[in-house]
Amino acid sequence: MGEYQHLIREQDGDTVTITMNRAARRNSLSAEHLGELLAAFREAGESDATGIVLAGAGPVFSAGHDFADVAARDLTGVRELLRLCTDLMQAIQSVPQVVIARVHGLATAAGCQLVASCDLAIAAESAGFALPGGKGGWFCHTPAVPVARAIGRKRLMELALTGDVVDAATALDWGLVNRVVPDAELDAAVADLLARATRGSRASKALGKQTLYAQLDRPEADAYTIALEVMAAASQLPGAKEGMAAFLEKRRPSWPD
Amino acid sequence: MGEYQHLIREQDGDTVTITMNRAARRNSLSAEHLGELLAAFREAGESDATGIVLAGAGPVFSAGHDFADVAARDLTGVRELLRLCTDLMQAIQSVPQVVIARVHGLATAAGCQLVASCDLAIAAESAGFALPGGKGGWFCHTPAVPVARAIGRKRLMELALTGDVVDAATALDWGLVNRVVPDAELDAAVADLLARATRGSRASKALGKQTLYAQLDRPEADAYTIALEVMAAASQLPGAKEGMAAFLEKRRPSWPD
Amino acid sequence: MGEYQHLIREQDGDTVTITMNRAARRNSLSAEHLGELLAAFREAGESDATGIVLAGAGPVFSAGHDFADVAARDLTGVRELLRLCTDLMQAIQSVPQVVIARVHGLATAAGCQLVASCDLAIAAESAGFALPGGKGGWFCHTPAVPVARAIGRKRLMELALTGDVVDAATALDWGLVNRVVPDAELDAAVADLLARATRGSRASKALGKQTLYAQLDRPEADAYTIALEVMAAASQLPGAKEGMAAFLEKRRPSWPD
Repeated sequence: MGEYQHLIREQDGDTVTITMNRAARRNSLSAEHLGELLAAFREAGESDATGIVLAGAGPVFSAGHDFADVAARDLTGVRELLRLCTDLMQAIQSVPQVVIARVHGLATAAGCQLVASCDLAIAAESAGFALPGGKGGWFCHTPAVPVARAIGRKRLMELALTGDVVDAATALDWGLVNRVVPDAELDAAVADLLARATRGSRASKALGKQTLYAQLDRPEADAYTIALEVMAAASQLPGAKEGMAAFLEKRRPSWPD
Repeated sequence: MGEYQHLIREQDGDTVTITMNRAARRNSLSAEHLGELLAAFREAGESDATGIVLAGAGPVFSAGHDFADVAARDLTGVRELLRLCTDLMQAIQSVPQVVIARVHGLATAAGCQLVASCDLAIAAESAGFALPGGKGGWFCHTPAVPVARAIGRKRLMELALTGDVVDAATALDWGLVNRVVPDAELDAAVADLLARATRGSRASKALGKQTLYAQLDRPEADAYTIALEVMAAASQLPGAKEGMAAFLEKRRPSWPD
Repeated sequence: MGEYQHLIREQDGDTVTITMNRAARRNSLSAEHLGELLAAFREAGESDATGIVLAGAGPVFSAGHDFADVAARDLTGVRELLRLCTDLMQAIQSVPQVVIARVHGLATAAGCQLVASCDLAIAAESAGFALPGGKGGWFCHTPAVPVARAIGRKRLMELALTGDVVDAATALDWGLVNRVVPDAELDAAVADLLARATRGSRASKALGKQTLYAQLDRPEADAYTIALEVMAAASQLPGAKEGMAAFLEKRRPSWPD
């Protein structure tokens, strides 16, 4: 993998941090930026890391699509751009690592979609969230997909139809983020939650995360059909065997993966 | 469209207000009342208005179905009545305007369903919400459909099984309404939220609202399939073109619709 | 039905109480225990009771699966165990009675799944909830199915990925339980909510509960297709006829079932 132009990818121990680094463009998501983010997530996904932090450099987390990039495209071109954007959102959910958003400043449109698509999210008290297409000319249709699945319907309608910014406390109340902390404590809070979310067998966790997304948003009986088979198979994997043996032998487990 | 007997339809600027006006019957939803409401929503839907307020005259918002109307019907007759009622709920979601419920007093059974079916809802502090069929002889099966999609499952079960009234603060906490205000501020709060929810390109907003309902309650990948195609197509519409051009040219947009 | 070894089944008036009684094993869910619970729910389901309380004896509500039972099983054996466990969860939702969980101490893994699967739940202030597979070697795939349908997505991810215990107040805020009360008031609160949830026509309530589960987690139009037909048919049942007649005649109803 070559160098990235629009982001910084760092690994520190078990954690990969991917930092959107187009501060002058408010970390807007041009096709090139989206392509690099997708590559970086795929690269991290194949690494031995257990957690991924998605952050933004500069004053905002991400302002969403770059209108300078969109405005010049025809239907086929916009479809390609949105396909790339959707691939990124789905890659975040399909990598085996736990992905946590570190949100400061504004997360708007596809930037808000990134927050909703990460497994977990911590917001600084100063953060704000919006789907601004609602008050403009291009509605936030795809950003609303994961946002709708994190918050209640009436809250979704308010966010999507007004386009106004809601503050971090509201986002917490609505379930869009897991925690809100003073800005100075953001990195520590991200590290703490990620550490707690990445314990245990790595293979078991990866299967767990991926199966959660597979069973969501389906009738409960269909979800059981998926989860039951996965859980039965998972019981025979080395991690499960070791976890149960350690529990029964009252010793600390030694994860095989 | 001729005169209405059971409701008042007024247009003030960009806003149509539909007021249920059977105060002596607690705005209960007889077949005739439902038929007029459906006609009024369709008429408003075809108008140049950008927002619709649904309100109730008299002491309550709406008490739901009119038992005097239901009790005399056989299976076919009740099915027709419920089909009409469901058509109304679905029309509220399919009209291009933003629909906001102005809720005071009680909203029970199909009256509570109306609140859940509107895009947005503001409640007076004195408002109460119930699915009273749970403590009677005819369960609120269809009212529970949109209510279930606005609040959490355990809250739904409590509301539907007990039949008891929950107050406005609880409805806000559960996500059934967007805001609770003192009774004297109800009209101002409705006007404020509706104004914020109706800015921007009218055609973009209509497509946005309708696509939200189309993508909800589906597996996320299916929702993306819908939203991605709509958003790509929408990028080529005049509103999107104008919005992006105005942004890039740092000027105020002039919406073409 | 013979005697139970692992649980206590008592009927007091209209209420059946099923108490998990393997305190020395923290009410863990061995195959034998699950089999007795399933039998007890089916027996209660066929009784004339209107409500069922699920409780746990000893210091905890339930610790979930019994690793001593799981560890010895091959894939086929674990699948059988999980099929039995899922049958229990689905029986709780399909019996005609209202089922309420009386939660004290810890409810973890399949124990937390039991709480999520009951129609209603009251927690003592001292209660805690966890999906601990997330920090071990065997992820809580099936417990996450009903938990995901009670709480928001970000909260689910935190619960499932960290494996940490959340307290009763958090469970209430997230919608996993209906009420939190001081430990000394737990029985009274359970009795109060159950009494309010079991009023009215018994047949109507049973149909109502079962239809709620049938219509959840589906696109809204599909849910209406189910609920509309059920509600039309239900209008012709004796309970609905009596309820409407009593209302119109301004007298107390006398439920026929």
